Amino acid sequence: MKKLINDVGSVVTDTLRGVAAAHPSLRVDIENKIIFRRDAPRPGKVGLVSGGGSGHEPLHGGYVGYGMLDAACPGEIFTSPVPDQIVRATTGVNGGAGVLHVVKNYTGDVLNFEMAAELSDDEGVEVARVLVDDDVAVRDSLYTAGRRGTGAAVFVEKIAGALAEAGAPLAEVVRVGREVNDRSRSFGVALSACTTPAAGRPTFELGEREIELGIGIHGEPGRTRAAHREARELVRIAMDAIDDDLPLSGETLVMVNGMGGTPLMELYIVFAEVAAYLKEKGATATRRLVGNHVTSLDMLGFSVTTCALTNELTRLWDAPVETPALRWGR
Amino acid sequence: MKKLINDVGSVVTDTLRGVAAAHPSLRVDIENKIIFRRDAPRPGKVGLVSGGGSGHEPLHGGYVGYGMLDAACPGEIFTSPVPDQIVRATTGVNGGAGVLHVVKNYTGDVLNFEMAAELSDDEGVEVARVLVDDDVAVRDSLYTAGRRGTGAAVFVEKIAGALAEAGAPLAEVVRVGREVNDRSRSFGVALSACTTPAAGRPTFELGEREIELGIGIHGEPGRTRAAHREARELVRIAMDAIDDDLPLSGETLVMVNGMGGTPLMELYIVFAEVAAYLKEKGATATRRLVGNHVTSLDMLGFSVTTCALTNELTRLWDAPVETPALRWGR
Repeated sequence: MKKLINDVGSVVTDTLRGVAAAHPSLRVDIENKIIFRRDAPRPGKVGLVSGGGSGHEPLHGGYVGYGMLDAACPGEIFTSPVPDQIVRATTGVNGGAGVLHVVKNYTGDVLNFEMAAELSDDEGVEVARVLVDDDVAVRDSLYTAGRRGTGAAVFVEKIAGALAEAGAPLAEVVRVGREVNDRSRSFGVALSACTTPAAGRPTFELGEREIELGIGIHGEPGRTRAAHREARELVRIAMDAIDDDLPLSGETLVMVNGMGGTPLMELYIVFAEVAAYLKEKGATATRRLVGNHVTSLDMLGFSVTTCALTNELTRLWDAPVETPALRWGR
Repeated sequence: MKKLINDVGSVVTDTLRGVAAAHPSLRVDIENKIIFRRDAPRPGKVGLVSGGGSGHEPLHGGYVGYGMLDAACPGEIFTSPVPDQIVRATTGVNGGAGVLHVVKNYTGDVLNFEMAAELSDDEGVEVARVLVDDDVAVRDSLYTAGRRGTGAAVFVEKIAGALAEAGAPLAEVVRVGREVNDRSRSFGVALSACTTPAAGRPTFELGEREIELGIGIHGEPGRTRAAHREARELVRIAMDAIDDDLPLSGETLVMVNGMGGTPLMELYIVFAEVAAYLKEKGATATRRLVGNHVTSLDMLGFSVTTCALTNELTRLWDAPVETPALRWGR
């Protein structure tokens, strides 16, 4: 294993030191592992907090800023943040209008955010939750009851964040966040496993011509193994799985996401095929993201996430955002 | 080799199809392999054209747009664009105020841009050139007489692009572009070689605990091989090489760049060490980029590029930009 790290034990802390040095628009509490918007809490604004295991960068810390999250809580690699950390983030962003937790559906995350919500409530902060469970590949998994949450977290954080920035009340922000999740679906394909710093070897072994379909973001097994094939066919498998679950039509927000080790060139090749597939179905990618957004350390592969847009969702997607990983229009 | 491609022969064309589908702000001439700003040519504005081998994405196509390049010419993988292609781009962005070629110092690129400049001149377009040669690792290489051009290309394109957008004449745009290059230095470290689709195997072999110092962006050999070590020490080696060549001081623009296969988490760990090193030297990273900007396919590793800022350069760096890979402040 060759990684750019100092020590296996300080990977998350060292990353946070780098985030703090790179982004003066953020306030990073390194000891408690929380990335805040510098101007949090904003009086009268609903606060947005997300979090989850590290190793998925830029998720979630890269989405902290104007028009998106107010704070992110990174856990250790592939490990849920702890309740105390989430409580500290929640009270730290509370501007008096309540706080939304955006939680990816993994058992540890769900439990710890739930406990944190109760503790925050004891401190007088109203907390609501949007659960993200967009991955159509597997119903239950090693880490999940029900569907896993992956790429749609970015969509929920952007769109609910825009509504919160506009001053909407908590109930409205929750409503739109849930609507985004309900309209979103994801499917991932891995060409390789990932290697955690602690383990030092890949989480599973794939043969020279073998791939894993329906992969998750923690190196957990996918739906099935198959022979590697051309990008066009891999995209068809992913998009068929999405379309079988929620038929694609109309204006669609599409993310082609790299898993961390995939060159941008290949993601564009995948995007071309996704756009062609959508056209076949009578759908159009009217809003698009291509790049590394929800990664799995050094994994090779991609995922596609779609969201069936409405006028409201498009307008909120287009609203100004200013975070390390997503920035436009302000 | 497992890559997300359809066919080794169509990699560049398929990438361009994806770029065209993903970015309506661009006009992509797939047949002639040119990525244009949709609104090019802009009457009265100096046009900026760059190009070079593919495999370095987002360079250069990802930097086409408001405040940066007017067109980019991707060659085949690690292969220079051809003169006809560059002429077509040059005449296509000429708004009557002349065109600047931003050329990385590789023998093929230099020759082909030179020929294209002469041919464009024959068609009545005034062309000037900024040669980028920021890499301190090696004096000459397999592909270069003199220093190689790497990360500073992004700085030159951004800063000269901002001046051109503000309506400055060609001579001024050239002057500032050369100043940026003169003030910029880079050094790269590879933990692995890259694999071109055509070769199907890594361009060189590194042992399980071996790294290559002073690497280029085409899988060509670096300065020396060494044992892998912690990020802090790798950064010291890179920064010492830069500082030996042009002592670091004052306000500095810093890019920590991934080579394509390196997770963002590791780049932040590297950035924390770079910021600490600068502080030791009495310099400050007042402007920062962390991410994949000048890549080498799937290579694992990083490069650091520094530019000693002036007030003018800072102001131009901060000016609005709206491209697929760099976007702020408009």
